[in-house]
Amino acid sequence: MKETTVKELTKVELTNPILIEGLPGLGLVGKIAIRHLVKQLKAEKFAYIYSPHFPYFVLVSKKGNVRLLRGTFYFWKSKSGKNDFIFFTGDSQAQTIEGQYEISDRILNFAKQHDAKMIITIGGYRMEAKDKPKVIAAATNQELLNKALQAGAEVSPTGSPIVGTAGLILGLSHFKRIDAVCLLGETRGYLPDPKSAKSVLEILQSMLDFDANLAGLDEEIVKAEKMVTRLQKIEEKRALEAEETRKEEDKKVTYIS
Amino acid sequence: MKETTVKELTKVELTNPILIEGLPGLGLVGKIAIRHLVKQLKAEKFAYIYSPHFPYFVLVSKKGNVRLLRGTFYFWKSKSGKNDFIFFTGDSQAQTIEGQYEISDRILNFAKQHDAKMIITIGGYRMEAKDKPKVIAAATNQELLNKALQAGAEVSPTGSPIVGTAGLILGLSHFKRIDAVCLLGETRGYLPDPKSAKSVLEILQSMLDFDANLAGLDEEIVKAEKMVTRLQKIEEKRALEAEETRKEEDKKVTYIS
Amino acid sequence: MKETTVKELTKVELTNPILIEGLPGLGLVGKIAIRHLVKQLKAEKFAYIYSPHFPYFVLVSKKGNVRLLRGTFYFWKSKSGKNDFIFFTGDSQAQTIEGQYEISDRILNFAKQHDAKMIITIGGYRMEAKDKPKVIAAATNQELLNKALQAGAEVSPTGSPIVGTAGLILGLSHFKRIDAVCLLGETRGYLPDPKSAKSVLEILQSMLDFDANLAGLDEEIVKAEKMVTRLQKIEEKRALEAEETRKEEDKKVTYIS
Amino acid sequence: MKETTVKELTKVELTNPILIEGLPGLGLVGKIAIRHLVKQLKAEKFAYIYSPHFPYFVLVSKKGNVRLLRGTFYFWKSKSGKNDFIFFTGDSQAQTIEGQYEISDRILNFAKQHDAKMIITIGGYRMEAKDKPKVIAAATNQELLNKALQAGAEVSPTGSPIVGTAGLILGLSHFKRIDAVCLLGETRGYLPDPKSAKSVLEILQSMLDFDANLAGLDEEIVKAEKMVTRLQKIEEKRALEAEETRKEEDKKVTYIS
Repeated sequence: MKETTVKELTKVELTNPILIEGLPGLGLVGKIAIRHLVKQLKAEKFAYIYSPHFPYFVLVSKKGNVRLLRGTFYFWKSKSGKNDFIFFTGDSQAQTIEGQYEISDRILNFAKQHDAKMIITIGGYRMEAKDKPKVIAAATNQELLNKALQAGAEVSPTGSPIVGTAGLILGLSHFKRIDAVCLLGETRGYLPDPKSAKSVLEILQSMLDFDANLAGLDEEIVKAEKMVTRLQKIEEKRALEAEETRKEEDKKVTYIS
Repeated sequence: MKETTVKELTKVELTNPILIEGLPGLGLVGKIAIRHLVKQLKAEKFAYIYSPHFPYFVLVSKKGNVRLLRGTFYFWKSKSGKNDFIFFTGDSQAQTIEGQYEISDRILNFAKQHDAKMIITIGGYRMEAKDKPKVIAAATNQELLNKALQAGAEVSPTGSPIVGTAGLILGLSHFKRIDAVCLLGETRGYLPDPKSAKSVLEILQSMLDFDANLAGLDEEIVKAEKMVTRLQKIEEKRALEAEETRKEEDKKVTYIS
Repeated sequence: MKETTVKELTKVELTNPILIEGLPGLGLVGKIAIRHLVKQLKAEKFAYIYSPHFPYFVLVSKKGNVRLLRGTFYFWKSKSGKNDFIFFTGDSQAQTIEGQYEISDRILNFAKQHDAKMIITIGGYRMEAKDKPKVIAAATNQELLNKALQAGAEVSPTGSPIVGTAGLILGLSHFKRIDAVCLLGETRGYLPDPKSAKSVLEILQSMLDFDANLAGLDEEIVKAEKMVTRLQKIEEKRALEAEETRKEEDKKVTYIS
Repeated sequence: MKETTVKELTKVELTNPILIEGLPGLGLVGKIAIRHLVKQLKAEKFAYIYSPHFPYFVLVSKKGNVRLLRGTFYFWKSKSGKNDFIFFTGDSQAQTIEGQYEISDRILNFAKQHDAKMIITIGGYRMEAKDKPKVIAAATNQELLNKALQAGAEVSPTGSPIVGTAGLILGLSHFKRIDAVCLLGETRGYLPDPKSAKSVLEILQSMLDFDANLAGLDEEIVKAEKMVTRLQKIEEKRALEAEETRKEEDKKVTYIS
């Protein structure tokens, strides 16, 4: 394998499909969102993407089986017949600069081959969310951006960078003449953030014509928040002990002088 | 996109054009200079350069729109009809060694296609300027170098390296049989330095046949100098406090022993 | 040499060969295992693999002779005539991500050309072994995995990564339609671990039809354990001295305050 | 320039040429040796090698002229008519692994095109030399190695790596069917070491049929030794002051406790 390659598992005819992408990144927002939609909508795998720019290890799956790192395309057929969906997620972002451009390119080619009408990319946006994480939007086209704003997203600040595949797909989509919008959920970014993913999915649901049970994420959210609380307590305890140590040392010093 | 690619927006006929390049680098001297000329002369965009060797993020522009990192070519038609100009600047230097050579090569190809008669590259030269930043010149051709020296530049010390696109274009221009000169403005390099850019533009104006209002940079210069003063005060205060702390500690030690 | 290249030394006809791979990695488990089998079974060199992704130095061999870093294929003809073996080991893993994929690919191509029926890769698994190092197995095929488990291996935990060539060969073997199994011996990993290699070879011998004297490794094991004991003593002494120093310093401080 | 490229300046007919290579490396031994021979024998430039794997800067040469980093081939016609010489040196080693292999390959191709009968590479060997630096040899061929040993070189220890172009040329020369020998002068390596270069040149002169005045290096040697002495004095003074400081601090501590 010298280049990033797409392997189709089955040929599928799709109606005006929209491709929705979410790879691992800040807060795993994109990956959590796509994984949840795939599960809720019972979307089906129909292609893999492999690349020599993914990390050079394999994963042991259930039952001691082994597989390369990869990205996976899923399809979902809309009952209304308006827009079918193609979902894309995977194990990892590319590890090299050229690989980042190459993989984004291949995803776009795949979208083009299936005559995709639009692309939505999902990721995280580093920001301490007040309460409910906001969703930041940017797009290749004003009309599409407005759609995201009407659904409750906020426009991304000018000059702000969007790193990785979620950004490059938008940058490169211009050359393939497909419109694309990026939805970024606010997240601290260092832990999986299903709450941020839920915010993004709410915007997505309001923009598109599908019905997925987002309450299913609430359990994950509770678990993630417990984890954050536990880590904060550990951190507070550590800070307290450091403070105590400092005071003790101050006493000694004071006594001397 | 597997390679650095140039996308022409419009076909333009130019008369004996001179290409003037300035990418981000030390003190942003090259970029500030080109940006100012483009604005003053109302030069027009006519081509982009994209590359998988640029960093792998996209930028959000005004109104939530998104674009790839890129370099931009502008043209300006001289009223005297002697030499039209092609300006080149961009968001970033290439991030890999091979990319640095590839992008410089593409810029030269573009110059050649438009039958450019000369190339001028602009950058920064790390040096604490006494008062007015000097401009250091190097060239592929003695006559061209003399022209820069007569305009007030100083010859670059022997053995001095010129890093990045501003240098490589000169190195590679030999193979395309285009003469090239590099003008480097003295700069500390760690902050945008419009004063250094102005020095370079004064030399440029004296070398070439154009009339741009350089006073327009003065406001930027004042702003940049305020920034430097503020940073210096912060640094001085920090140094003073460190000194105080040291004295306090010395007292204690003296008391003990 | 622009790409990884295989150079065949002699043409050999093999009967239903099984390729067994072990490059340097954690505890050198793979390399030690293959080296021992090659020696015991008197397997013969028949091909080299060279690559611009190996480190850029050469090795001085006996008598001042020099050679590139390389991988080596050996063959062994079974007396029972059931399965001949191809062994593969080498000086180094590839140094780049793309190189890792490229070299694994070339090994698989070589296996395919010789109509290999199965591939076994050997490596280390970072784990403090209680007494006798266990062997962890993963495979591309349930039947093959079961064979390893019946021989005494344990199934690899789900989600566990297998890094480097030993893993990638399994990941890529799918595209060549060859079944593959990976055997990883528990090892601390930072020193050559012939004990772990022996554990793997015992499993291998029970899975396959060959008879190699594994007792030959015992001398190496004794030597390696002496080395570990010596390093542990050095470490303990260092820790003791650090403790003493700390106590001395504590005394001074106590005296002062 | 997408690949390492050789540009011939003039066509030269050479008689049974021997190529002698020395790029910058440990102690600059190879570069100093070649530079001296080129000067003494008045060898003439006849080709350049350029590469996108050299560092991405250009050098300002005398008179403000600019040039790419490059390697240079020189030729020298023997008066005896037995073996002409091709010398090769340059500004830098390649900066990437693949580049190291590519450049070594191009040098070998160039040697082959000129029907070179032998290659000698020169470099440094990290070792504190007692008095006169020894020369360590390794070769692709026993006869050639013996020639170096008879000339006073010592055989390289088994397992020792030879890093960079001086080593890779030997490793790759096998594929081009050219014999090659490597001569490494002992050197501390962190400063230019003309003394080590002289040792290598003495061996070379005894191996080959040429007459170059090596005394010309003595001035450089004196200069380099002065530099070493000066650096050692600075280091000793620094160590002394550190010792003084330590004693002063010890006094205080002793007084307290």
